[in-house]
Amino acid sequence: MANFDLMKELHVAGQSKIVMVVIDGLGGLPMEPGGPTELEAARTPNLDSLAAESTCGLSVPIAPGVTPGSGPAHLALFGYDPLRYEIGRGVLEACGIGFPLGPDDVAARGNFCTVDENGLVADRRAGRIPTEKGAELCQLLRAIQLPGLETFVEPVMDYRFVLVLRGEGLSGGLSETDPQQVGVLPRTVEALLPEAQRTAELLNQWIAQAREMLADQHPANMVLLRGPDKTPLLPSMAEVYGLRAGAIATYPMYRGVAKLVGMDILETGETLEEELETLKNHWAEYDFFFFHVKKTDSAGEDGDFARKVSVIEHVDEAVVPAITSLEPAVFIVTGDHSTPALLKSHSWHPVPTLLHSRHCRPDGVRAFGERACMGGGLGVFPATDLMPLAMANALRLTKFGA
Amino acid sequence: MANFDLMKELHVAGQSKIVMVVIDGLGGLPMEPGGPTELEAARTPNLDSLAAESTCGLSVPIAPGVTPGSGPAHLALFGYDPLRYEIGRGVLEACGIGFPLGPDDVAARGNFCTVDENGLVADRRAGRIPTEKGAELCQLLRAIQLPGLETFVEPVMDYRFVLVLRGEGLSGGLSETDPQQVGVLPRTVEALLPEAQRTAELLNQWIAQAREMLADQHPANMVLLRGPDKTPLLPSMAEVYGLRAGAIATYPMYRGVAKLVGMDILETGETLEEELETLKNHWAEYDFFFFHVKKTDSAGEDGDFARKVSVIEHVDEAVVPAITSLEPAVFIVTGDHSTPALLKSHSWHPVPTLLHSRHCRPDGVRAFGERACMGGGLGVFPATDLMPLAMANALRLTKFGA
Repeated sequence: MANFDLMKELHVAGQSKIVMVVIDGLGGLPMEPGGPTELEAARTPNLDSLAAESTCGLSVPIAPGVTPGSGPAHLALFGYDPLRYEIGRGVLEACGIGFPLGPDDVAARGNFCTVDENGLVADRRAGRIPTEKGAELCQLLRAIQLPGLETFVEPVMDYRFVLVLRGEGLSGGLSETDPQQVGVLPRTVEALLPEAQRTAELLNQWIAQAREMLADQHPANMVLLRGPDKTPLLPSMAEVYGLRAGAIATYPMYRGVAKLVGMDILETGETLEEELETLKNHWAEYDFFFFHVKKTDSAGEDGDFARKVSVIEHVDEAVVPAITSLEPAVFIVTGDHSTPALLKSHSWHPVPTLLHSRHCRPDGVRAFGERACMGGGLGVFPATDLMPLAMANALRLTKFGA
Repeated sequence: MANFDLMKELHVAGQSKIVMVVIDGLGGLPMEPGGPTELEAARTPNLDSLAAESTCGLSVPIAPGVTPGSGPAHLALFGYDPLRYEIGRGVLEACGIGFPLGPDDVAARGNFCTVDENGLVADRRAGRIPTEKGAELCQLLRAIQLPGLETFVEPVMDYRFVLVLRGEGLSGGLSETDPQQVGVLPRTVEALLPEAQRTAELLNQWIAQAREMLADQHPANMVLLRGPDKTPLLPSMAEVYGLRAGAIATYPMYRGVAKLVGMDILETGETLEEELETLKNHWAEYDFFFFHVKKTDSAGEDGDFARKVSVIEHVDEAVVPAITSLEPAVFIVTGDHSTPALLKSHSWHPVPTLLHSRHCRPDGVRAFGERACMGGGLGVFPATDLMPLAMANALRLTKFGA
């Protein structure tokens, strides 16, 4: 990705500040044909005024038609090509529960599953056992010993857990054991790289012991491992952009992804007001702030159009004026992806985005919404373009070539 | 660059003519929020009429957020990926002063600088010595002899000069000596390719002799070399597009870049009227004309909004009707980059562009300006797309595949 590499070459020092507010799952859809989206239905006088002085557009998180998970969607917003920098499922789950992964740890996402008397997978999710049951089984599995290693087994939710191996000489480059269908045997972990041979053997030993321990725990009588890998080595935002970056997010997953790109994680509370307080308290210390708003996404996932509207209105009322009054050089409002209440899930739809600065070119967009942003100066653009544009507008890039 | 390679394959012969008017630094910004840009403020009835019959858009010279120098920005307009075909600073400076570089010459941009008693760089620009002083020092340095080589030392402006080595067996693939900071030693030239070893040694010998000669010339008591390289081997426009291309430009830099892509440089005067006269006189001889307008950029660099407006109005009045009356098959008006008077420098903002032909699809844009072009049929597009579109509209491309 040339653009990303250009940033390493062109960034210069500066005093200017960039604030990126990520309203999770911001983009939406009309519930009825002809109706407004969540953002269009929301009363957002502050965002509308800001949009009128901004360059607006619709960002495409990964690629047209592709619905992103939270990890890759955030990487894209931070300017990291999500197709080049893949984060394993295990690492993402560990981030999600705030597990402090070390650089040499291997993390796998685990699913409790059901196998029949021949060992064939009968239910990949063990009948979606309750979280408490999952936690109890994790407690059991903690007794498994592997030579020379520490192991951690941490419950996530329902049938999901995280397995972490810690010790010397572990390697990524491993296949997963979930066969993605029932009626077949679980796969074994295979080394995809020569140096991963020992790690693959250790994971298979762990699985064999887990199978024995769970034999009489029907329906959760076996485990499947997905995406075992080490933490990817991502260049830090300091390296790529020369920015001291701070992250303000209430959920562990987003703090985890921010940490992967080298941001400092700023302690904060549960509410938007507490997040704003954190921003103000650390204002002098950082050049870039990632400010995450979670509850829009949860409302969208629940199919609750009205609740998503009301979270957006809360952001408009509480967050926008507070940040404007800090006078950042660049103020971005965007989302990591769309989560339309209509679909009750993440979706592929491009995400309304505004970039405000003294040096942006206004574009006649007068309201912050999906249809309005379509006519904006950014057009429909890859999310990975946002950081280069932020850097340019913060006057933190030098000229390319003479 | 797939698109570029397609051109080599698909171009066919024709009689149609393409004129590309490049208004240097055309794009702008409002001086006050809510105000017009330079182009929007200018009275441009002819450009507006032309836009109404054209496909319009905003071109991105290099990549979103990236501010281009003139060299890469022009390469992009001619369809050459500026990230693939990089022109060294030395070659560009040589172009800029009209120095006739040979294909085997190595050119470096030189800066006179100040070093302290320990040889550490104290001022990378030697206090910006006046041009006359620089010329005098260049005269001194011409005495340096290198075995088997001719050397040329040509003043540019202030503390800047061009060093050219001419002889057999010289190679590009060299590092530069400017450490980009003070308080450290100048770097030595290092060979980045095995075949560059001898050239690196020769340049280091030259620098050692220059240091001795300049020892008592404080503040200009040392030199730094930037971007030493040979002229890049670019495929010619004849090869890529099958076009006989002529360049009409008043400044050496632009003539130099045009020459790099194989254009004939047409002798012309200093004024737009003289450039038009040149165009008419050579009309029969070429398929493609690059017509460069310099003074918009200079006005932008000076922060002179009104003067930039008036140059644009002059282009509208003098250049547009004259070219229209020649009835080119394709008439493009664009810029190489933006130079907003607000910023007094080149910038990253996309550039208003119109493409007029009998076969373009009009798009409802009724005025030639930044905001109007945002709604155009070309959208926000890479500058490298412009030549393929010109070729298509000139009916000079055959079908891809059966």
